[in-house]
Amino acid sequence: MNAPHRSYRGKRALVTGGLGFLGGNLALRLNQLGASVTVVDSMVPGCGSDPGNLDSARGAIRLVHADIGDTHALGGILADTDVVFNLAGEISHLRSMTDPQRDLALNTVAQLQFLSELAARRPGIRVVYAGTRQVYGAPRYLPVDELHPVDPVDFNGVHKYTATMYHLLMAKTGVLDSVILRLTNIYGPRMSLTADGQGVLSFFLRRLLEGQDLEVFGTGEQVRDPLFVDDAVEAFLLAGEVESPPSRAYNAGGPEPLTLLEMAREMIRASGGSAKLTLRPFPDALKAIDIGSYLADNTRATTELGWKPTTSFEDGMRATFDYFRNAAAQRPMQPAPGQPLELLPHEPRRV
Amino acid sequence: MNAPHRSYRGKRALVTGGLGFLGGNLALRLNQLGASVTVVDSMVPGCGSDPGNLDSARGAIRLVHADIGDTHALGGILADTDVVFNLAGEISHLRSMTDPQRDLALNTVAQLQFLSELAARRPGIRVVYAGTRQVYGAPRYLPVDELHPVDPVDFNGVHKYTATMYHLLMAKTGVLDSVILRLTNIYGPRMSLTADGQGVLSFFLRRLLEGQDLEVFGTGEQVRDPLFVDDAVEAFLLAGEVESPPSRAYNAGGPEPLTLLEMAREMIRASGGSAKLTLRPFPDALKAIDIGSYLADNTRATTELGWKPTTSFEDGMRATFDYFRNAAAQRPMQPAPGQPLELLPHEPRRV
Repeated sequence: MNAPHRSYRGKRALVTGGLGFLGGNLALRLNQLGASVTVVDSMVPGCGSDPGNLDSARGAIRLVHADIGDTHALGGILADTDVVFNLAGEISHLRSMTDPQRDLALNTVAQLQFLSELAARRPGIRVVYAGTRQVYGAPRYLPVDELHPVDPVDFNGVHKYTATMYHLLMAKTGVLDSVILRLTNIYGPRMSLTADGQGVLSFFLRRLLEGQDLEVFGTGEQVRDPLFVDDAVEAFLLAGEVESPPSRAYNAGGPEPLTLLEMAREMIRASGGSAKLTLRPFPDALKAIDIGSYLADNTRATTELGWKPTTSFEDGMRATFDYFRNAAAQRPMQPAPGQPLELLPHEPRRV
Repeated sequence: MNAPHRSYRGKRALVTGGLGFLGGNLALRLNQLGASVTVVDSMVPGCGSDPGNLDSARGAIRLVHADIGDTHALGGILADTDVVFNLAGEISHLRSMTDPQRDLALNTVAQLQFLSELAARRPGIRVVYAGTRQVYGAPRYLPVDELHPVDPVDFNGVHKYTATMYHLLMAKTGVLDSVILRLTNIYGPRMSLTADGQGVLSFFLRRLLEGQDLEVFGTGEQVRDPLFVDDAVEAFLLAGEVESPPSRAYNAGGPEPLTLLEMAREMIRASGGSAKLTLRPFPDALKAIDIGSYLADNTRATTELGWKPTTSFEDGMRATFDYFRNAAAQRPMQPAPGQPLELLPHEPRRV
């Protein structure tokens, strides 16, 4: 049962990275709730932006094609914003290891510019940042609560944590009213099937949609707590409206622990197909940044935000396959990596 | 009693930020120990660089005037290095709050470039990084060990911790053999009396050398564990030669806890003068980033590196006043802020 979220009616909400998987779902839901939604997205190739994600709200959501670090383009928009959902960023763990400077520029340098401009234009505004479980590195205990030591295993985790520290510091000094969500693996409608480093669920989904078999690396016994995107969106909505949050950072994971093998089997079932499942040795490139099992402790988010994930992996995956099969019927699959997306003008416009 | 450090004889040691207070003392000691020392320093105004710090080893230490992020200038030098002491960086807490982008560029962007180039030229090399107690923020318990949560209270702490995470990550992935020292307030010969944000001891020292009275902010009851620079240098030497360090990060604080008032009184005594001491309300600009009391737990460094601070504040301050009085007799006081330092040529040369 989702909260009614009446507070968003008529509110001016800004979603950075709003053409991405999670950002797109959040922007659509905010629009449904009666918010006046602006999406800022730089459409950096490989980061998962897809203008098609907002197709169902064409004309209702304002889209600004700009980098969040471009304070010249964004200044006036920030001044007219009531709440910010800050989801822009590079998400590829692997690419961050081959090009850490790029990851630094996208996840840290641009965030500092954005937050500084935001604090100048709208001091004290609520900003909800999409953090990641990845900052904890390989868990020292399970489930992982918010006091777990931070120990990222790749540059992406380092830079996401730096941006997290910006949000925390600016809350401490009172210039922004930040809340951070540390999200686990998210899946669901609009997830990118083509962007690099979207994780194993995206990879499995694409293979199954294409009628291919699945391969699981290692023993397949690593545990995860995948989170359906609607549940993740619900966490953002609650974090955006909670008054005087008792904490600044909240872990948010899915409702049930599943091994990789269980997820693969469930996805084959949800696909309705007869794909085969085989185990393969762990590739070296992935071994270095593998973190073993992960489970979030959602207690703080449940207690303080009233949030709880409610969608089982079975239900969530069925909805996901339904979406992609319908979407495939209506418009061609998302562009392959390297193929440029349709470029939108730099000026704000309605999509 | 300092260790003999015979391992440094003939070793090629690189000291980044080697014209600064701590870097200069370390470079001189390495030179004494028979190392072949190269100093890299960008002499960014306000960061505390002073070519005079190396005067006593004129001709013996190679000085390169370059930014550590300038991989073009440094590539060949890195290839010819056996051990790196990485002390370059902006240290002003206050300036980081007024210009966080500058702090990010100096402490994070440049460090990533430097470390990436170092890993490419000399994979697996030992690099000892000058971290700071500041990454812990306001202590949740005393004394502060290395497991204390990280929670910086200013941008300088955020960016120093990001550089710390780079060192930790590159140790984890095996491309660098990093060791981090998290140092408390350091004082002693060659400390900068003029650079911004050098802390209260530098400020007190200058006032006393100029025959002025002292003012202590607040109640003066905040506790610190000031560390004499020779003890800090000893920690770097041990961290540079320890084989297979059991840990990657070590706290290093002074031998005795002292209140600010006690330090002020001891400094007046050491100055041999009759300066007066008055209490004043805490300025707002400092209040926001004050962390209360701090004491380092040195257990890990003592157990694993064999390090222990041995210089009392009384002895250390006496040596400090002696140094500055002799130095003042030999050469004029360090240039005032805003007055440019003598610029050295970009090419390596002997000083």
